[in-house]
This record gives sequence, structure tokens and C-alpha cells, in this order.
Amino acid sequence: MQRLAWGLIGGGQGSQIGPLHRIAAAVDGRFVLAAGALDADPERGRDFAISLGIDEDRAYGNWREMLERESARQDRVDLVTVATPNALHCEITTAFLDAGFHVLCEKPMTMDLAEADAVVDAAARSEALCAVNYGYTGYPLVRQMRAMVRKGDLGAVRVIVAEFAHGFHADAAEADNPRIRWRYDPALAGQSAVFSDAGIHALHMACFVAGQNPVRLSADLVTAVAGRELEDDAAITLRLEDGATCRLWTSAVAVGRVHGLTLQVFGEKGGMRWEQERPNQLHWTPLNGRTQVIERGDPDLYPEAEQASRITIGHAEGLPAAFANLYRDLAEVIQARRDGREPSPGTLDLIPGVIDGHVSVAAVEAAVESARGGGRWVDVARPHHNAVGVQGRT
Amino acid sequence: MQRLAWGLIGGGQGSQIGPLHRIAAAVDGRFVLAAGALDADPERGRDFAISLGIDEDRAYGNWREMLERESARQDRVDLVTVATPNALHCEITTAFLDAGFHVLCEKPMTMDLAEADAVVDAAARSEALCAVNYGYTGYPLVRQMRAMVRKGDLGAVRVIVAEFAHGFHADAAEADNPRIRWRYDPALAGQSAVFSDAGIHALHMACFVAGQNPVRLSADLVTAVAGRELEDDAAITLRLEDGATCRLWTSAVAVGRVHGLTLQVFGEKGGMRWEQERPNQLHWTPLNGRTQVIERGDPDLYPEAEQASRITIGHAEGLPAAFANLYRDLAEVIQARRDGREPSPGTLDLIPGVIDGHVSVAAVEAAVESARGGGRWVDVARPHHNAVGVQGRT
Amino acid sequence: MQRLAWGLIGGGQGSQIGPLHRIAAAVDGRFVLAAGALDADPERGRDFAISLGIDEDRAYGNWREMLERESARQDRVDLVTVATPNALHCEITTAFLDAGFHVLCEKPMTMDLAEADAVVDAAARSEALCAVNYGYTGYPLVRQMRAMVRKGDLGAVRVIVAEFAHGFHADAAEADNPRIRWRYDPALAGQSAVFSDAGIHALHMACFVAGQNPVRLSADLVTAVAGRELEDDAAITLRLEDGATCRLWTSAVAVGRVHGLTLQVFGEKGGMRWEQERPNQLHWTPLNGRTQVIERGDPDLYPEAEQASRITIGHAEGLPAAFANLYRDLAEVIQARRDGREPSPGTLDLIPGVIDGHVSVAAVEAAVESARGGGRWVDVARPHHNAVGVQGRT
Amino acid sequence: MQRLAWGLIGGGQGSQIGPLHRIAAAVDGRFVLAAGALDADPERGRDFAISLGIDEDRAYGNWREMLERESARQDRVDLVTVATPNALHCEITTAFLDAGFHVLCEKPMTMDLAEADAVVDAAARSEALCAVNYGYTGYPLVRQMRAMVRKGDLGAVRVIVAEFAHGFHADAAEADNPRIRWRYDPALAGQSAVFSDAGIHALHMACFVAGQNPVRLSADLVTAVAGRELEDDAAITLRLEDGATCRLWTSAVAVGRVHGLTLQVFGEKGGMRWEQERPNQLHWTPLNGRTQVIERGDPDLYPEAEQASRITIGHAEGLPAAFANLYRDLAEVIQARRDGREPSPGTLDLIPGVIDGHVSVAAVEAAVESARGGGRWVDVARPHHNAVGVQGRT
Repeated sequence: MQRLAWGLIGGGQGSQIGPLHRIAAAVDGRFVLAAGALDADPERGRDFAISLGIDEDRAYGNWREMLERESARQDRVDLVTVATPNALHCEITTAFLDAGFHVLCEKPMTMDLAEADAVVDAAARSEALCAVNYGYTGYPLVRQMRAMVRKGDLGAVRVIVAEFAHGFHADAAEADNPRIRWRYDPALAGQSAVFSDAGIHALHMACFVAGQNPVRLSADLVTAVAGRELEDDAAITLRLEDGATCRLWTSAVAVGRVHGLTLQVFGEKGGMRWEQERPNQLHWTPLNGRTQVIERGDPDLYPEAEQASRITIGHAEGLPAAFANLYRDLAEVIQARRDGREPSPGTLDLIPGVIDGHVSVAAVEAAVESARGGGRWVDVARPHHNAVGVQGRT
Repeated sequence: MQRLAWGLIGGGQGSQIGPLHRIAAAVDGRFVLAAGALDADPERGRDFAISLGIDEDRAYGNWREMLERESARQDRVDLVTVATPNALHCEITTAFLDAGFHVLCEKPMTMDLAEADAVVDAAARSEALCAVNYGYTGYPLVRQMRAMVRKGDLGAVRVIVAEFAHGFHADAAEADNPRIRWRYDPALAGQSAVFSDAGIHALHMACFVAGQNPVRLSADLVTAVAGRELEDDAAITLRLEDGATCRLWTSAVAVGRVHGLTLQVFGEKGGMRWEQERPNQLHWTPLNGRTQVIERGDPDLYPEAEQASRITIGHAEGLPAAFANLYRDLAEVIQARRDGREPSPGTLDLIPGVIDGHVSVAAVEAAVESARGGGRWVDVARPHHNAVGVQGRT
Repeated sequence: MQRLAWGLIGGGQGSQIGPLHRIAAAVDGRFVLAAGALDADPERGRDFAISLGIDEDRAYGNWREMLERESARQDRVDLVTVATPNALHCEITTAFLDAGFHVLCEKPMTMDLAEADAVVDAAARSEALCAVNYGYTGYPLVRQMRAMVRKGDLGAVRVIVAEFAHGFHADAAEADNPRIRWRYDPALAGQSAVFSDAGIHALHMACFVAGQNPVRLSADLVTAVAGRELEDDAAITLRLEDGATCRLWTSAVAVGRVHGLTLQVFGEKGGMRWEQERPNQLHWTPLNGRTQVIERGDPDLYPEAEQASRITIGHAEGLPAAFANLYRDLAEVIQARRDGREPSPGTLDLIPGVIDGHVSVAAVEAAVESARGGGRWVDVARPHHNAVGVQGRT
Repeated sequence: MQRLAWGLIGGGQGSQIGPLHRIAAAVDGRFVLAAGALDADPERGRDFAISLGIDEDRAYGNWREMLERESARQDRVDLVTVATPNALHCEITTAFLDAGFHVLCEKPMTMDLAEADAVVDAAARSEALCAVNYGYTGYPLVRQMRAMVRKGDLGAVRVIVAEFAHGFHADAAEADNPRIRWRYDPALAGQSAVFSDAGIHALHMACFVAGQNPVRLSADLVTAVAGRELEDDAAITLRLEDGATCRLWTSAVAVGRVHGLTLQVFGEKGGMRWEQERPNQLHWTPLNGRTQVIERGDPDLYPEAEQASRITIGHAEGLPAAFANLYRDLAEVIQARRDGREPSPGTLDLIPGVIDGHVSVAAVEAAVESARGGGRWVDVARPHHNAVGVQGRT
């Protein structure tokens, strides 16, 4: 097994998402952290990079330096993860794509639709991969749900109920804490707070599982904590391409909910329910039958789910292993390209790409417009290039 | 303890709701089933009444006969429960109120707003009680939630998430089964199916707990099973009087949900969550604190909840005991009137009355209008007589 | 429907178990509370009886008076429930049996094995019924478990894990509270505390479901709170007639357990799990299959379980309804005797009787002996009259 | 950060435990898999080692070759993990300890007590570390429980209920499947099957959390599937050093239990409950208070638990992260020795060592003796060298 060279932008000391990426990339040993521009403060970033084992000459002070010097190397990094503040996603991602680097960009892919179009365009003109980190789709049982829909176990999907609710921004006395305040500041967060930050995970999971994207929506955005400019609670109803209805609730003021990312999918022939906080069980009810508990690691899972499991049934797997699946799939595709072969079947299909990133941003814009328009139904904008997947130009 | 005489209209053999009323009325022994017009088929109704121990001369063939003959008795029934098909609620309830009988009417109180106004008017001109059977509010922990809001434990309520989802109408092959079809037939069910049948329980519970009624709403009504004229899945967002937002989802096609009546209430100072299927536990999370499990029967419950419990902590209590609380409260108020005393403090306040019935019907009408209007916000009509409670004229 | 006359001994004001019996007997309206000797204090007992609607002349000062005067009546009570302190169970039960009254005796049936033999003898020479109140067996899903074992769904039962654990006697500072102390006083509680009080429910449920009684056991009894003379935590392993092993744990010091009566049954062909605190769901796992959730009210339950349900699926039923099943079954058998017909099939089989009462007492004695003997296996004594059921002489 | 060189013995292709070790060692990047003797078949082992990125000259055909050649290297591996069949643990572990290698040995440490004594002796005469892989103790909330006991939150521990039950050996038709049969063959598995394989995890967790080892026990071992020579279900009651009682149940025939490793600890001042299948929540009930849900990642966890968490609250962490904590702790101690400094406070204390391994084996022997002796209490043998920890000679 040959190891791939991995570069990280953002995810510096104290970052929440940084450790998760590093663990996820390490789990299967397919990537070696080879280069990084980890912090807005060049010195801190370099020091931290070195402490993580990155060679001094690849511990960069900022992403432009990294772009320039990695581009010049023979052994340039095979994959760049962009985990910076959201406002930089578009610029960095397009720059690296244009330089031919494969990119894994954190969500939300961009701040607005114009930027999302720009990333889609960059992906369309590049041969590099552009993935977006909807890491929860790496959970084996999320992939099982998707496979169940595809195989027709549920028949046509009718209704999806998707939630991502937490209560960590509920304390009015903490509203001005800088760690929280920026999320409700349009200059830093864009036009939406909790939907753009949390809710789009639920939305993407619904689309990923149902195999359908939204075409229009009606939204209500609420600011529960006085003084905020952006919503901290939202309900959105979406109509999906093949007619399913998705009811989405997301909240940052739901005291008592911790990381309430849940999905319920109801079809003609059955219904199912999954919760991120207890990710190793999936509840499935065939029409007119009893509810069954499907365990991660069950011998009769679909291959997509089985291959995403690393350890035996009953042993809890968590989010690091889910994220690791995304890195493993990327490694497989990158390696296949190097080897001049096709990646193993189905791999590309499981990696969230620029269209997925675009859908989320378009849904956010549509939701803001709908809420301002008193709940009226608003179309969700489609990208110019529908055929652009994670794989770049097609 | 003197027993009160109880009359039942509807609830004949094979009825789902009839046994629940009979058990609920029997639990505390405050009522004796003394008269009944139990079935649309007079003979069946009389036979069944006699089999239940009703004297032959009070086993009536229809409600009009019952009204006439009970009105003429010295020992007329103290309370009449109306558990007929919905289309008869208004006529029967107003007739009995006008004759001075106390009435407990099943939900939905009426088929439409005009009828709801009529019942409110009848209650306003009567001295009799008019209660509406939102029996789930009899659960001790639902009353605990209401008390917690009142005492300020949550601070101002911000967001409520209310659900009533089941999957018993999901089978398209069963859509023409008469037991199911009538619910989607506007002639029999009115203008709404699942919201009017199930969802209004969730709505009433939200209002009961929050102590606020809705002022306007935005709705999406969906017909998942082809061929139905009325909705089998709905999402409604409501703004309540004091500013809270209520997000309500109700469904009859949610395969795997059995009797998914749940309530989550999020306030400035904490959040809580309750499920009808596991009614003896309430999850409460103070802001910045740990989630706690409040058990029915806990020594530190508020009096409203403590008094609603009959057996010791840990022993499961169910819906019959919850409904029984409504009958016990009605018995207390009726007995107090007989005795010329005030009912014990708080009792009247806990009994759902005509305003509650009116709110539900008005919300259904508004939801239908909003859905037809593409999700636009619609005002929820208020009754002429806001001051009319369960107690009749005030 | 003719109502039967019911008499209650014990269960006075403030009693925990009294309200449960009264509700259970009231639920189906088959019994009218007609006579009672409710309290050790004759005046309090009479007053309370009258407040419950008992006629003055049947509000007795003590059980002997009740026995004498009811025996002399034409319309004597049809059933006597004995809910006094344990030390009186034997004397009262045998006296009423000998006078020809049907008796429902609270558990533990007696204080020791000699008394248990005496009750068995009385039942054997009487034509009256003698039931013992293992009321948890009235839960529909407990009856479902029994039926599943009988139909062979599990194959041979291998291992049963039965628990009844609570934490209400864990506070050392409360050990001298009279409400708690008597339970650990051999003079009042007999030779065992938590096993005799709580654990025997778990044991009976195991035997009821498995259809097997214990033949020998090995026990460990522990006194966790210093100063107690009797055990407040116990583990007992029992070998049952057909070879199954039952592992039983019971505790009164398990802080955080509320009413932890649970049963797990593992057989050759599947396993199942049930919890009293969530009694409306049963988890069933066929060998090599997925765990399924069986809901009370499911259309495919066995008749024993279906007939024990009163309300539709998804609506929580609780302990009062479970106890009510025992009263309903007794009413059916008593009425059948009056009518000179057979009770409906299976009814007698579901009512716990004197053999069940004897088994529990014998198991308690054996457990005490085993614990004193350092855990050695001790035979569980069998009654002289194995053929004596709830029905008396056979 | 300098990486340590890691060697693995056993854990070849198809092994269950191998992937878990490799992931656990990779998570923090402190170890590089540098050498291995992975399979009983030398060729397969070498090929698999190379496929994992091990250099050809360190892909050994068997452990003796690895011992000899690694001993001769300057850059010998820093840690050897022994994940072979149980019968080889003792010989390999003592050999590597005697050669000065730090060892992490899988459980059970040895086949019998004589071997356990031998490993303890080897550890006592060596300066190398000898850890035993009770990896479940790496879960943050297991460490939280241990800290809660230490800080006195529970007061004196009274009763512990520990379980490890699964149903994967319940199918009699599969009893002769070689994958299962060896576990019940005394020649390969030793004197105990399910207790030695699964139950000792529960026992170690109980001791780890309570901070007490067992002094004597009473056991019942059952063979539920006919034809087996060793037990597939066992109940053991143990008395611990400071007086606590541990009730342990373990089973391989508990159909429906998946990986039922659970711990309940009841003390004077509170009780707590944890389940391996949902490892991110701990239920804690202070005496006379409400049950609380403690989440992994809560800001008020004890340092032992906080430091064991890698990602933010609400994001599920699983067993790979728990095992990784053991590897991280070992890396810290090994690095500290290299650096000539003390390891960070508390680290050594958290690593299960030879005494823990010895306790388990001694408990197995005592359980077998007790069961053969009809449940009588048997002392649990103590090692000669009580003072020997994970650290070797002291």
C-alpha cells in the first residue's frame, strides 16, 4: 500500500474540525499529513504543523504560499483539505482546483450562490476531484439507507423528516461571546446562521439517502435570541425532484438536544429512522410489519454499508470512522487515477461533490427569500453544469 | 362519595374510543353509566347499552330520544359524553347544552368554523359545562410541563416542536378500505384529514403546555397516497400569542411510527421533551445543565401533576388513567356545583373547553387556506366570546 | 352484565396497593365494592369504607367481623381481596377459603413455608378459588411472552434473566424511617426483605412465562445498608423443571432504578426482553434474525395477549389495566361457576394460584438457607398437593 | 512529535481484533507499524505485513524470528502487541519482556494461573512495560465513572452489576463451525469459554471503576448448547476488597444481545449505568435526586474523561477511539522514559497491567472451582508480586 500525501489548510490549534480530519485521514493509513497552512497566524500555523510531524519546509505560513510551493514540487500533495473559515472556501478551493489539486472542501462550500457557481465552474474546467465534506454520509448505516432506497425497499419515497437541532446557542447571556457571535454576523456567516451551519447537513443527508435534490421550498426562519441578525431556528419544507416532501427542522436554541441530527424516511413500502447520536442502529419498518433493528455490522447489510464498517458488530463505531470513509474513498479514486484504472465500483457515487455543495447554498438562498416573502414557495437554483460531479469535468 | 349519573352518545360496539371513555369514567368510581344512545342502529345500540348494565328504559335508540327523556327525568344524567362521528358533534352538543346538560364532546369539536362558533355561542348562553376531550392533557407529566412553564422554569417559551405521526394509513392497497376511506372523504371528514384527526391533539397539547393560543400560521398539506382528496401528511408553523413559534408535523403515512404524539418545548431557561408512548418519563434540561429524567410520581412534581397520579412511582400509568383525570376533574366541578361550593383550586383551569375546541377548528381552516395559498401566513380566527371557558357563561 | 360483589380487607387510607386494587376492580365494571375491613384501626377503616361508597352495614371494623357477617348474608361478597400486612395473609385467606369465599391474596402469600402449606391445604379442601396477586402477569405482553414460549417460538428455554431492582431503600439516613424499617425487621417481614417483597415478582414472572417452576437454587443475600437484619440486595440462580436456568437479581439499593422489573428469556430459537417501565413494547429476536419490536395491540399477537388489551395500539396501557385483567379473569371464572358453565378457554390457566404462591415462599426459604450455607445449592420445597390450582380442589 | 515504532504479532488477514489495533494505533499518529509476525502461516503473514506498509525485512514469518531480529536492531520496535491465539500469550509476552520490549498483551493474558504467575514474574524482573488490552476502559465515560468513584461522588460502592452478553454462539446448528467450536475446546480455550472470553471484560471494568479487586467468588457455569465442554453462560458473584459485591452475568447464548457489555454501580450516595453499545452517555442518579444524562464531551467531566475525548460533544465516538486512548497512554509513558521524564500525571494509573491480567485469570480459575463445588465460595488467588504494575519492576 502506497501512502498518499495530504495537505491541510485551516484546522489549526484549538479548531474543532481539525482533529476530526486528522484522525479520519489517519485511520486507514492511506494518507500522510505532508503539508499544511494551518492558521491565520503564520507562525502559529507553522509551529503547529511541525508539531504534527510536517516537515519544516512544508509547514506553510498561508495558503497562497502553499499553493505556489506545492505546485512547484514533483511530490506535491495528492489531496488538499480546505477547513478554513467559510468566507475563504471559494477562493482557496477554486485556486487549488485550477492548479490541478484534488480538493476536499468543508461545508458550507461557499458563502453564497455566486460563489457556489464559481466553484462549480472551476470543477467543470478542472480534471481534479472536488469533494465537499458532508462527513456524516460516511456512517455505514447512512449508506445502508441510501442503498435501501435505491434497491426499492421503500418503494417511492413520500416524506422525509430531517432534523439537526442543538441547544448550544440558547443562552442569551452568551450571545456576545465571540465564539458564538460571529455565527450570527452576516459579514462572517453569510445570509443564514443555523440552517447554513447545521441544517444543511440534514438536508444533504436527506438528498443523499433519497437520491433526489430539492426543486422548491417554503421556509420560516426565526430569531429566538434577541439581538441576532440571523436565524437560530428554522423550519423548511422542500419538494424534491421525484416528488418526495422533506420536512426539515434545525435549531441552535433547542436546549437538551445535543447533536440532534436525525433522519426519518417514509416510503410506499416502509419507513426508517436513524440518529447520529446512536449511529450503530437503524430502525426499519416494512409496511404492515414490525419495526426491526438493523445493526451496523449485520451480515445482511448492502455492500455500500458493509464496506464502510471496520470493526465487528456491536462494537460502537463513531464519527471519526465515518469521516474516515470519505478519506478512504478519496484515496481509492486518487490511487485509481494514478494507476490508470477505474476506482472500485460505487466509490465515486458515494463522495459528496460540488453539485451537493451547490444544492446546499442554493437552498439557503431560497430559504432566506421564502422566509422574507412570508413563507411563499421559492425555486431552488440549479447549477449551470448539472453533470459535474466530484470528478470534475465529464 | 356520591356517584354521578353518566350518559354516553356513540361509542357503540366495535368503537375504538368508546371503551376508553367507559374505562376512564369507571376508574375513580365517580360516575355510573346510567344512560346511552350508543349506536346509529337503534336496536344494536339498545342491546349494547343493556349489556353494559344500563337500565332498559335508559337504553335509548337515538340521541334525540335520549335528550327528550332524560330532560324529563328528575334524576337526569349529570354529564353527557358525545362520541359520535364528527359531523354530529355540533348538533348534539348544542342541543344538550341548551337543555342544560353538562357535555364532554369528542374532538374535533366540529366540522368547520361556523359550527365551532355555534358551539361557543351555545356554551355562552348556557350555564352548563362544555368540555372537549383532549384527553392526553390528563397525563400527569403533561400537566407537569404546563406547570413548569407557568412557574417560569423555562422562562419565555421560544420554540415548540409538536408531532403526531403514525403510519396506519400508509398502505395504498388499503386506501379504499371503508374503515380508512371515510377519513379522506370531505363529506364525512370535513376539510382536513390527518391534521383534523391527529394533528390537533399535538396542537392542543402545545397550547395547553405553553399557555398560549395560535394567532397565525403557515401550512403545507400533502397527499402522499394517490387518490385521496384530503391530506395525509402536514407541516404547520404557528406563531402563538406571546411570541413562541410552534413547529407541528402530523402524518398518517409515517410507517414505523405508532402513536407518535410528542412534544418538545424550548425556552430561555431550559428545554423539555415528552412522548405519549412512554408517558411516565419527562426529559428536562436546564440551560447549561444536564438532561434530567423526571418520573411520574416523583416527590417533587408540581401539585397539578402529583394530583393526577394514582399509583406509586415506577409503575406504568397509561392513557386510561390520563382520560380518567378528565372525568375526575369534571366530577369535581359538577359535584361542587351541586354542593354550592367552589371546585378545588385549579381544576377548572385544567379542563379543555370550547375555546380550545374552537382554536383547533380555526387552525384547521387556516391551515387549509394557507396550503392552498402556497404557504402564505393566515390568521387563525378567534371566537366571538373569548371569555367562555369550560364553565359556560361567565 | 351482572355485577359481582367485592370485598376488600386492608388497603386503607394511605395504602399504596389499595388504590391499585380499587381501580383494577373498577375498570371493567364487573365488580362493585360492597364490603370492606380496610384498616387495623376499626373506626378509620369504617369511615374510609363509607367514603368509598360501601354501605354502612358492610363497612366492617375488622376481618373477623366481616367473615362472620358476610357468611351470614344471602348476598355475600363474591370475591375477597386480602391486602393486609403479610403476617395476616395466611390466617385470613384460610379462614375465608374455609367459609367458601373466593379469595385473591396479595403476595407474598405467606410468611413462611409452614403457612404456605396451610394455605395450599385450605385451597385443596375448599371449592373456592384462591388466587395470588402477581398482577404484573396481567400485562398483555407478559402474556404474549408466555404464549410465545408455549407455541414453541423460542424452542426450549435455556436462560432467563429476571430483575426487580429499585433504589428506594438506599438512603442510610432513612433506614430508621418506620415506613422502611419494618421491611427489614424479621418479626414483621419474615426471613427475607427485598427478595420476598420485590424479587418474587421477577421469579413468578419468569416461571409464568417459561411455564416451569424452580427445583433448586443457589443464592447470595447482601445487606448493603448497615444495621439491617435482612437482605437489601440478592442474586439467585435457579434451575427450573425443564432444565432452564434463571438468573435473578433484586435490589432495594440500586439508586437510579425506579421499578426495574425486567425479563429476558433466551431459547434455542430466539430471545426476548421486556421491561415493566415500558410495558407496551416487547423486543423479540429470532435466532440469526433481527430484533423486532412487538407492540401491545399488534394485530398478530397471540389471543392471550390480544384479549388482555383494552385500547388500540400505540396508546400506552399501564399497570392498572394489567391488574384489571386479573380481576376480569376472576370475574369470568366466578360468573361461569354461577352460570354452571365452563369459563372461557385459557382463563383459569392465566390466574396465579396457591401453587404459585407456594413456589415463591419455598424459593425464599431455600434462598435464605443457601445464602447461610455459603451459596450451596438447595432444593426448593414442593407443596403436598401439586394438583391444586387457583380453582381449589381438583 | 516523534513517532514510535510498533510491532504486531498476530492480527493477520481476517482477524477480528487486528484491524482494531491498527486503527487504534493510527488514530493519534504516535505509532508507525514497523514490524510484524502476523500469521501462523509465515508466507501469508509476510505478504499481509507488506500490504500494510511494513518493510520487507521486518515482515517476519513468526514471532521467534521477530524477537531475534528486532532484538538485534538499533531501531527496534518500541512496543509489541501480542494478538495471537490465547495459548501463545504467555510464552510470547514473557519472551519479549525478558528481551526488554514493552508489550501490550491481548486478554485473557494467559490460559491459566500458572502462566499468569509466569507473566507477573517476567514483568517483575523486567524494566519493560507490560499492559493488558482491556480496551473498553479507554472509553471516556468509563474513565469518568472511575473518577467519580475516586472523588467520592458515590460514597462507598455497595453493589456492582456487570454484564457481557451476546447471542452469537446460540445456534446449535453452528456449534461445530470451526470459527466457534475452538472456543469451547479446553485444549484451545483453556478451562473456561464465555467467562474467559467475554465476561472478564465486564469483571475488569467493574474492578477498574470501583478501584477494587475481587477476593472471593461464587459461580454457576452453564452449558446451554448440548455437546460443549465449556460454559456458554455464567453468573458469578464476587466480593471485592473493600466490601462491594459484584454480580456478573455473561453469556454467548443471549439471542438479541449484540455486544451487551454494561456496568451499573450503586454506592451510598448515588448510582450510575453505562452501556458499551451507546458509549457516549452515562446515566447518573444522585441519592434522592433525579437521573441525569452525562454526555461524553460535557464541559464538567473529570480530567481523566475529558482528556480521553477527541471530538466535540454529541459527535459519537466509538471503540476505535477508546482503544486509541490505550495506545496514546502507552506512547506517552514510552516517550517519557525515552525523554527521562515522568509521564503526565495519572497516565500510568489508567493502563491495565499484569495484575489486572492476573486477576482475570485467577477469577476464571476460582469460578471453575466454585461451579464444580456446587456454588461454594472460593478465594481468588493473588499474585506473588502485588506491587507490579504496568510499569514492571517497582
